[in-house]
Formats: sequence, structure tokens, C-alpha cells
Amino acid sequence: MIFFGSDNNSGAHPRILEALERANSSSFSSYGEDPFTEEAEKEFKKIFGPEAGIFPVFLGTGANVVGLKAMTAPYEAIICAESAHINTDECGAPESAIGCKLYTLPHEHGKITPEQCLPLLERRSAVTHSYPITLSITQSTEFGTLYTLEELKAFGEFCKRHELFLHMDGARICNAAAAMGLSPAALSTELGVDMLSFGGTKNGLLFGEAVITLNPRFKRALPYLRKQSCQLMSKMRFISAQFVEYLKDGLWRENALHANEMAALLRAELENLPGLTLTRPTQVNAVFARLPRKAIGELHKNFYFYIWDENDAPGGPKDWPEVRWMTSFNTSEDDVARFAGAIKKLAR
Amino acid sequence: MIFFGSDNNSGAHPRILEALERANSSSFSSYGEDPFTEEAEKEFKKIFGPEAGIFPVFLGTGANVVGLKAMTAPYEAIICAESAHINTDECGAPESAIGCKLYTLPHEHGKITPEQCLPLLERRSAVTHSYPITLSITQSTEFGTLYTLEELKAFGEFCKRHELFLHMDGARICNAAAAMGLSPAALSTELGVDMLSFGGTKNGLLFGEAVITLNPRFKRALPYLRKQSCQLMSKMRFISAQFVEYLKDGLWRENALHANEMAALLRAELENLPGLTLTRPTQVNAVFARLPRKAIGELHKNFYFYIWDENDAPGGPKDWPEVRWMTSFNTSEDDVARFAGAIKKLAR
Amino acid sequence: MIFFGSDNNSGAHPRILEALERANSSSFSSYGEDPFTEEAEKEFKKIFGPEAGIFPVFLGTGANVVGLKAMTAPYEAIICAESAHINTDECGAPESAIGCKLYTLPHEHGKITPEQCLPLLERRSAVTHSYPITLSITQSTEFGTLYTLEELKAFGEFCKRHELFLHMDGARICNAAAAMGLSPAALSTELGVDMLSFGGTKNGLLFGEAVITLNPRFKRALPYLRKQSCQLMSKMRFISAQFVEYLKDGLWRENALHANEMAALLRAELENLPGLTLTRPTQVNAVFARLPRKAIGELHKNFYFYIWDENDAPGGPKDWPEVRWMTSFNTSEDDVARFAGAIKKLAR
Amino acid sequence: MIFFGSDNNSGAHPRILEALERANSSSFSSYGEDPFTEEAEKEFKKIFGPEAGIFPVFLGTGANVVGLKAMTAPYEAIICAESAHINTDECGAPESAIGCKLYTLPHEHGKITPEQCLPLLERRSAVTHSYPITLSITQSTEFGTLYTLEELKAFGEFCKRHELFLHMDGARICNAAAAMGLSPAALSTELGVDMLSFGGTKNGLLFGEAVITLNPRFKRALPYLRKQSCQLMSKMRFISAQFVEYLKDGLWRENALHANEMAALLRAELENLPGLTLTRPTQVNAVFARLPRKAIGELHKNFYFYIWDENDAPGGPKDWPEVRWMTSFNTSEDDVARFAGAIKKLAR
Repeated sequence: MIFFGSDNNSGAHPRILEALERANSSSFSSYGEDPFTEEAEKEFKKIFGPEAGIFPVFLGTGANVVGLKAMTAPYEAIICAESAHINTDECGAPESAIGCKLYTLPHEHGKITPEQCLPLLERRSAVTHSYPITLSITQSTEFGTLYTLEELKAFGEFCKRHELFLHMDGARICNAAAAMGLSPAALSTELGVDMLSFGGTKNGLLFGEAVITLNPRFKRALPYLRKQSCQLMSKMRFISAQFVEYLKDGLWRENALHANEMAALLRAELENLPGLTLTRPTQVNAVFARLPRKAIGELHKNFYFYIWDENDAPGGPKDWPEVRWMTSFNTSEDDVARFAGAIKKLAR
Repeated sequence: MIFFGSDNNSGAHPRILEALERANSSSFSSYGEDPFTEEAEKEFKKIFGPEAGIFPVFLGTGANVVGLKAMTAPYEAIICAESAHINTDECGAPESAIGCKLYTLPHEHGKITPEQCLPLLERRSAVTHSYPITLSITQSTEFGTLYTLEELKAFGEFCKRHELFLHMDGARICNAAAAMGLSPAALSTELGVDMLSFGGTKNGLLFGEAVITLNPRFKRALPYLRKQSCQLMSKMRFISAQFVEYLKDGLWRENALHANEMAALLRAELENLPGLTLTRPTQVNAVFARLPRKAIGELHKNFYFYIWDENDAPGGPKDWPEVRWMTSFNTSEDDVARFAGAIKKLAR
Repeated sequence: MIFFGSDNNSGAHPRILEALERANSSSFSSYGEDPFTEEAEKEFKKIFGPEAGIFPVFLGTGANVVGLKAMTAPYEAIICAESAHINTDECGAPESAIGCKLYTLPHEHGKITPEQCLPLLERRSAVTHSYPITLSITQSTEFGTLYTLEELKAFGEFCKRHELFLHMDGARICNAAAAMGLSPAALSTELGVDMLSFGGTKNGLLFGEAVITLNPRFKRALPYLRKQSCQLMSKMRFISAQFVEYLKDGLWRENALHANEMAALLRAELENLPGLTLTRPTQVNAVFARLPRKAIGELHKNFYFYIWDENDAPGGPKDWPEVRWMTSFNTSEDDVARFAGAIKKLAR
Repeated sequence: MIFFGSDNNSGAHPRILEALERANSSSFSSYGEDPFTEEAEKEFKKIFGPEAGIFPVFLGTGANVVGLKAMTAPYEAIICAESAHINTDECGAPESAIGCKLYTLPHEHGKITPEQCLPLLERRSAVTHSYPITLSITQSTEFGTLYTLEELKAFGEFCKRHELFLHMDGARICNAAAAMGLSPAALSTELGVDMLSFGGTKNGLLFGEAVITLNPRFKRALPYLRKQSCQLMSKMRFISAQFVEYLKDGLWRENALHANEMAALLRAELENLPGLTLTRPTQVNAVFARLPRKAIGELHKNFYFYIWDENDAPGGPKDWPEVRWMTSFNTSEDDVARFAGAIKKLAR
């Protein structure tokens, strides 16, 4: 079985495992009072700036919940795309943990625009509506697409002008930064992002994400919210040591570039095939496609991946569900070649 | 100023005030251990059946929150129309009080169909999605329309078949029952509704609604949820006495019929006017229309009502917002005549 | 049956009912945009100062929840007496609505001291503990006792020095102010109270309390929290009109003084009776006592009151539960005479 | 620096790290659909029985929150010792996540009795009180003590008789089982425990705990609550593989026995020292003591441990805080010898 199901099908990068072993050399103080956490903070601040607040957590849903809870009161609302992970993949964790409402917007390949948000701000005029205070965007998106730097700047300015807090779900921000040839800070600190969920799990960590607070007003609440939200690891050094290894000399970029390249390679093989429609741009590490259900069944014998949308595209061929194929830091050229080969065989 | 803003612009029916005076004759035990509450329970059970659980509360949002919280866990979801009061007019109270998610559906004049709900049930297959367990419909709807008895039966059967709990926001169920010539039980008990928010405030009470539990499994939680949700009145007899008066000989129907008739009268006057578009069917006590903003401004000098939608209808005339005109038990024929006269004068 | 169960056994003062009738003279705008609410605000500000934020709500638990939720984040804690209404009589509403923790302190007749709070502040040093941010005291207390002005001042200073918000549950603040010969502002505004639950129901209103915000930082959240917490009455004028009547020429004080006097009268009759122990000071409108269960049973035939504590006092006589006898604005001298007579007869 | 601060100062047992390496051999399906999780389930069921529901999570607070949330509604209460981790060390996570109330009881060295719980059940009679539905005990306790099997049986019977759900915080259940020479099932499944937090982190895992559901009624909610509470690891195999190694041939017992022995060794060295008071029984892996603050300061130069209680014992020597010394699977006899030597030198 070869895995294209998700970038979390992969394990940990070998260097990450070695870092865990080193962190296991002796006992250390718990809850972050250890040298690995100190070093991780330094590495993070090299990237995000000295004022950034750094809060490693276990997982992406946890990072989102902790960050959003610091910004949003129960009577307030978070604006996001209908396709946002916080709306579709967290079993209602934001509503449950915060008590707030999500105002969702239709998206184009996972992307929304400031203009779409504007009418929602009219809801600020009456107490019958939850007050929109936070805007959450995902970079790269759940559909493997990217906001351009211009688009991100526009969000930063929009939020400042309208007194919205800007949250970025960066579960795959490394894939984005690698694809754009930029630092993660260029996509966050420099644009006025207030809170970032910085992903690690999907890009080579055994586990671990970090809430990065870029607005000092949220620094006081974060340590408590991390603890209360079940995201404070007692043996913290084991997240921190992974991040040190990940950040110190660009392993994050190396892994992300590789994953992105494997997706590009796969896509290149599949362009213009007759029995297949590519449904989304491939800008990072995902290829979305529609193909006959029967072909999907054949592929599933040797390749692991998800059906993303069971329904047919309006006006499209019958019984061609949409599938998602994701690559990871450990996807090999050979994996791609075999998979592309199998698809091509079926598509013809 | 003549009021067509909402049926809660009206006060209390004179008989209701008299009932309050009678209940004020002496001291009584608190928290529902009083003869008025006993009598109110009897009157409610005459209508909804002997198994109904009766829980008077202060207001409609409270009734909805208490009832929905008994049916829905934080990891579950409530299906409702985008236009549902619980979605648009309660400042996120369901999300905040329950922690659950709302799955909202596009509507036609406030109405949804079981067919629309069906795809949402696919979300039951994965823990990433909040599990849809409750379906909430409003009768009469927020747009002054009615589900037919057949449509309601279909919801009852759909919910039974798919193990959904059926909630009815009946803030205006009396207007519906009156318009349909039915008992409120025909719209709830007899159809398999599990939980009903039974409205009083908008139809002649000084204040007061009741959560009616028609599914015995929820009876245990209700008293606690009413208390915890700040809906247990210490001087309970003052809600109960109003309901006794409202229910015992059909004041509810009388008030609702009158309100409905006044809306019908208003609508009849406005059909086929050139400078006005009637935008929704008038089946109970509301008339929705679009007309030029300037005309609205003129009308606002003497008549109180809300602009419902500031935006123009797609393809419609420019700067014709949608307005809502509601009638109540205390709207007089003269009120309607004056208002219709003023509108007609402007519309020509 | 004569009622000494609670001051909420009483109904509404006749002037309050008349005020409701006047407010029922015609239709009015909803949600507080009416002349009664405007007038009520003026009356409240005459008492609490021009900067006070005024938010009428339905009931005491609602007032406490709304006020405390504005001040306390889910990761923070509220310090209060074990006997506080928010801890013992609200079915966990603060924990449920806010998600926060209560740190409770042993009390003397319902009263706590700043010194007792001091050790709790040490919990601020670690994220494992909810951060104590709010201190809630009740004036007059659940045991019918009073903090002196000096004691209240000490709380104000303590809270300022330790960056705690000071909340006052004033469900019976009128009884306190009347007993102390002071304005309610002398017990709140002038002492640095940040948030006050101002009671009406227990002192002659049909229903209605008000959240009084004395710290401007909380003004923004209050309207939303009131709505979301199911405490925004659509026909608001019916709370407001009661408050106008209650406040404009001292009805609140008149009612409270009478209730207090009736309790003093009852107590005076019962001092030094052999078969009865008076267990708490009587400083407002409550008398607490222990007497044989058999005597309680006899009294219950004609008088309504609660057993407060089923257990015997340590070292006290066997099977002498503690009872609470409360007087109200409508308790008559004759009521007291009959009750005292019956008690004396049994006690001898 | 030698670490006696907590059993979470230790790292992972070498066999655990090797298990992680093996689980990293290739890609696998996410969210528990992998062979490691299947095997872990089998190992768990060998211990806890075939009906047990197995839900690995990240950390102890997460295990407690998920398990307790399945058992307790927001209007209900959890009975526990004042010293319970859920009350003192989770930053209010239970209140925040569940919305419920904790009813806390004074304890003796961390232990409570069914008799103490009995009066709390009287609170079931009124809706003003949160309804006690869950009883949570910790085995071994936060003070390193053990409930005897008889005591645990009494809890099981008490809960059955009074319709309480029994929750066991077993963050250190392995230390308890090892000390008692029993299986973890003898302390849970066989006694009627409904929900167990089964600890791993403190006894040799890199991270990981498991919610064990022993009452089938809670099985439906658990997967959703785990996800919503941010406790569903995408790369689940990395928790599961640790548990396989931990459970398959008794590593859990070996580690726990060693930790317990090291504490016994330390204690044996310290009995009857003049300048030191041992304050709690040592039944698993903790030694609690009081000694002069100056001595503590000296010890802190080379040994890491916490001051547990800054205050002096009533009637005890001045400025002798209570300290906690915990041993772990990786504490060596040499560590103990050095530490005991240093203490003895100071104590004399």
C-alpha cells in the first residue's frame, strides 16, 4: 500500500526521531522549564520576531482552539471559509470550547476575499447577532491552494481597518512558505497576523504544532488557555526538541519543498488525461481530481487516499467523485511514478 | 406612531393584566408550587396530552436554549434553516449554552424540506463532523409562512426514520394553529415533535413562553436546565396565571386570529400596487414587501417597522429594501386602514 | 397559610402593578427603545452616577451570570463564600455559562473577609490553577447579615490593590441600604464595586433585576451577554416601568424598611424563648432559628417556611433543624403577631 | 541535577523509544486505522476485558476531561477530593469543558470515603443544586497513598446503590496495581468503575494516556468527545505503539515496581531523622516530608523537587514547608543514595 491519503499518513522524519532520542538522554524539569524549550523559543523568535509568543501544543485542532479562544468571546463570531478546517474537521471544537459562532463564507478552492467579509460586518449593529471579531484564513488552504502575498496583505489591511483579529490556520504554512520562497514570518508577522497555528505534524514531526501569538494583548491568556484546553505537555521537551530540529537549519523547508515537488510531479503526469479531471490548482502538496468510481476502486487496491466529495460535479460526468491525493516529506519519486502509472493505465 | 415593527411591540391583552392582578391577591409558594402553576399545567395538558412535560420560562430564546440543550450534546449538531431565529436572532445562544454546532440550510420563505437534510446525515459517518441529532423547524416561520400539515408529517416521519429529534420553535405556533384551524397539538404532539417552544409573548402575554416536552426521555433534565439557564421564575405564578388565562377558553386563538386577519387585510389592500412588490406569502401575521427607500423614509415618520433586508433583490429595482410589517392582537382595523392608505399614497 | 418562606413568596406592590398597567397603554418599540427604559436609566443614574451602565434583566441568577461573565474568563476564578447564592442556588449556572471555577471560602453568617482571600491569590503563580480575578460578595448576605461600611471599604481597597474585580450580589441590596440608612451607591459606586446585581423581585417587583456596570471596561460586552444569556426582554418597558416606580420616590426603601422592621419585630418576640435558639444576627429581613422538629411540623400547618439545615448544630440539642423565616414588603404586623404567638406557644 | 520533582521529569523508557522507531518504519492510515492501534486495543482488552472501550489520548488532563464529559451533563456535578488533580491541577478544565460543578470533599492523604459523599446526595432533591452524578477517585492518590481493595469495593457498591457513575483517575494506576500485586482490572473492571483514565506518561511513555470505558452506555459519545476535546492524534499509531510495548509483557509493572521501590528506599533512609518529619504514608512512588526551609534551599542546589505546601503544619515547627519527592522508572539506587545522603547530612 502506498499512501496518498494525507500528509499525516507519514511518520516522523529520521532527524526528528534522533532529536527525540537526544531529548531522552536524562530527566528534565517539566512543563517547559527545560533547555530544549528554551532553544525552541529562540529558533521560533529568529523566524517570527522577538515579540512573538511561542506556545507548543499537541495538535492542529488544539492550536486553533487555543489561539481562537484567546481572541474571541462567546458572544463574538469568527469569519472563515465554509471549507475551513475549524468549520468542517474539528467536530465543532471551536463552538464547544469557545461558545462562539462561526460565520462561514463560500470559497473558491478554499480561498475567500475581504470583500466577502464586508457584509458580515453589518451584523455588528445589533445584539441579536454574534459580533464578528476574528477572521480566520488557512494558508495553504484545505484545497492545496495559496493566497498570494498581495491577497494576504489585503487581509491584513482589511482586518486593521475593521478592527478584526486575523487568525491564520498554518497547519501547512511551511508548504506555503516553501512554495512561495518566503519565510513563514513574511506570511504572518509582517502582514499583521495576530495569531498563527504553526503546523509540524503534517510536515515531518512525530507530533506537535505551535500557537504563535503575534499580538501582545493575547500573551497573558495563552498559558492558561493552553493548560485548560489540554494542550500543555508535561514532558514538553519532547515537542520542543522536535521543533528545534525542524527549525534550526531549514528542515521545515526541505520537507515542504519535497512534498510540494512530489505533488507537482504527480500533477504533471496527469495533465490532459482523458478519463480524469483535475479539479483544483496544485500549488503545494495536493492534487484534487475527479475520475470514475470504478477507477477509484481499482486504485484503492494498492493506493490509500480519500474520496473528498461523493457527489458529482454539476454538469460533469456521472459517478465521478472528487478525490484528494496528498504528498508528504516521505513520498518518493518512485511512489509517484507507480501511482501515476496506475492512474494513467485506468484513465485510458 | 402606529406599530407594525413586531408582534412584540404590543403590550399585554387586558385579560392577561387582570390575571396578573388576581395572582397578586396574596403570597404564594415560589418556584411553581402554587395553584396557578397547577392549573396552567392542567390547561397545557388538555391541549398537548397528559404525558407532556410543561416548563414555563421567561422568553423565546430561553425556551429554545432549554429545549435544545436537553436534546443535543456538545459534539452533536442542530439542523435548521439559515433564517431560523436560533441561527440569526439569539446572539449565538445555542452555541454558547450548548457548545454544539448549527448546520444551516437555505430556505424558501423560511421553510426547509427533509430532502435538504438528507445530505447532512452523511456527516454522521466521521468524528470530524458534529453528529446531526436534532432538527429544528419554525411554525409559523420567520417569514410569516406555514408548513402544511402534510409537510409537518413528513418531518415527523423523516426524523423517526433517521433517529433525529424534532424541535419546533413555536414562538408563533398560535398564529399557525389559528390560521390552519387546528389545535397546537395537531402541529406537535400528533406529529412526533419531541420538544416545542410554545410562544406567548408575541400573542398577548406580558411575557412568558413554555418549553413543552413531548418525549419522556427529556423530562428528567428539563427542570435542571430551566434553572441553570436562568429561566426558572421565582414568582412562577405570574407566568402561570397568564397561561391559564391564555389557554382556558381560547384567548390564544382569538388573539392569533385577529393578528392574522389584520395582516390579511393589510395585504389585500396592497396587492397589485405599482410602486411595491409583495415578497412573501402572507399566511399568518406578517407582510413582507419591497418599496423605494424614499417611500420607507416617508412611512417611518408615522409608522414603526423594520427594514428586513437592506440589499436589493437580484434583478429588482434599485434601492428597494425589503421591509417587514407585522400585526398583533392589538392591531386595529383603523391602524391597518391608515397604514395601507399611507402606503398606497406613496406607491402611486 | 401565612408566608415566611422567602421574600419572593410575596407578589408585586400595588404601585408596581399600576405601573405595568400604565406601560400597557399602547404599543412601543421593543428591546429597550421605549420611554420607560429611558426614564428607568435616568432614575438608576441618579442613584449610581452618570457613568453607570444599566442593564435590566429578568431574574437574579441571570443578573449574576451576565455580570460575572463580563468579568471572568473561562480560565479564571471567582472567589466567594461557600454560602453564596452563585455557589449554592444557581444549579451551577456560573460554571456552565462562563466555564470558570469558583473558589469558595468558609463564612461567618454568610460573610467572608479579605484576609481569607489572600491565600487564594497565591494560586495566580501557576497555570495549573484557575486565575482568581473576581471577588463576589453578597449584601445583605444569604443569612440576613450585613457587611459594615468599613468592611465593604476594605474589600474595595483589597480588590484594587490585588487587581481583582469586585462583584456584589445585591439581590437584597435595598434591604441593606435601608437598614444602613445609606444609598445603594454608598454600598457600590463609592466603594469601587465593578459590577452589581441590583435586586427588585424580592422587594416588591413582579419580576426584574438589573446588572449595574460601574467599571466602563465592561460596557461593551454587557448588551451582547444580556442577549446571549436569555436576559433581554423584548417588551423591555415592562421591566423598566417597574423600576421607574420602584426608584423614583423611594418605594424601594419603603418596602425594604418595612420588611426589615417585620423581621426585627419577629425577632424581638422570640428572644430568650426556652425552646428555641436564634442562630444568626437579624440585620435585615430574616430570622434564623433552631427548634424541635416536632414544633416545626406544627408550625408548618399554618405557616410556610423552609428548613435551612436538616442537621443539628454540633453539640446542640437533637433534632433541632435550622429554619429560615423571611419577611417581605407585604408581611403585616398581624402576620408576625400570629406567627410569633404560634411559636411561643410551642416553645414553652 | 538529580530529579525528584515528578514522575514526569523522566523521559521515555528505551523500549518505548524503540517502539516509536518501529512504528516509524513506513506510512500508515491516520486516526487509528493502523495495525499498532489494533494491537494496542487487543492488549488493553486482555487486561480490562473484551467489553472495554479503548481511547488513547495525549495527556492526563485530556483523559479526565473526555471521560468525565461523557458521564456528566452541565447541570450535574462530580464529587471528588479537594486534592483531586481534576480540582487542583487542570486550570478548571472540567468546569470549562463540561460546564458542570465539582463538589469537593476534605481528604485524608488524598483519600475520601463513601460516607463523606452521602450528605452531598441530599442535594439531589432541589434544582437549585447541580445534581451529583459522578464520583471521581484517584488511585494511587495525589499524596502517594492507596485505597485498599476493600475501600475500592465499597466505592463500587456505593455508586451502584446511589446511581452514581464511578470515575477513576488512574494517572498512576500502574503504580497502584504494582504495589498491590494486582491487575489494573482488579482495581477497575472488577469493581464497577465506569470510566478510567489510564496513565502512561508518568510511568515510562514519551506521552500518552487512555480513556478506558467500562460502561457500554458511554461508548457512543467517546469517539466524538475525544475528537472535539483535541485528543485525537492523527498519527495515532505513535501512541498505540507505545502502549503495545508498555502492556504486552508487563513493562508497565516493571517500571512501576521500580519507581515504588525507589520511593520505599528513600523513605527507609529517612525514617526517624530528627530534622525532618515524614508527613504521608509512602505506598507507591512518593515521599512527602517537612523540613526547614533553609535545608530545602541547600538541597535545591543539586536536587530538583517541589515545595508542596508553603505553609507550616498547624502546631508544627516554624518555616518547615512540606515537600514532595517523587521517584520514577528511571530513578536509580545511586540517585536515591545521594539524595538521602544529602538530606541526612542537613537533617542532623
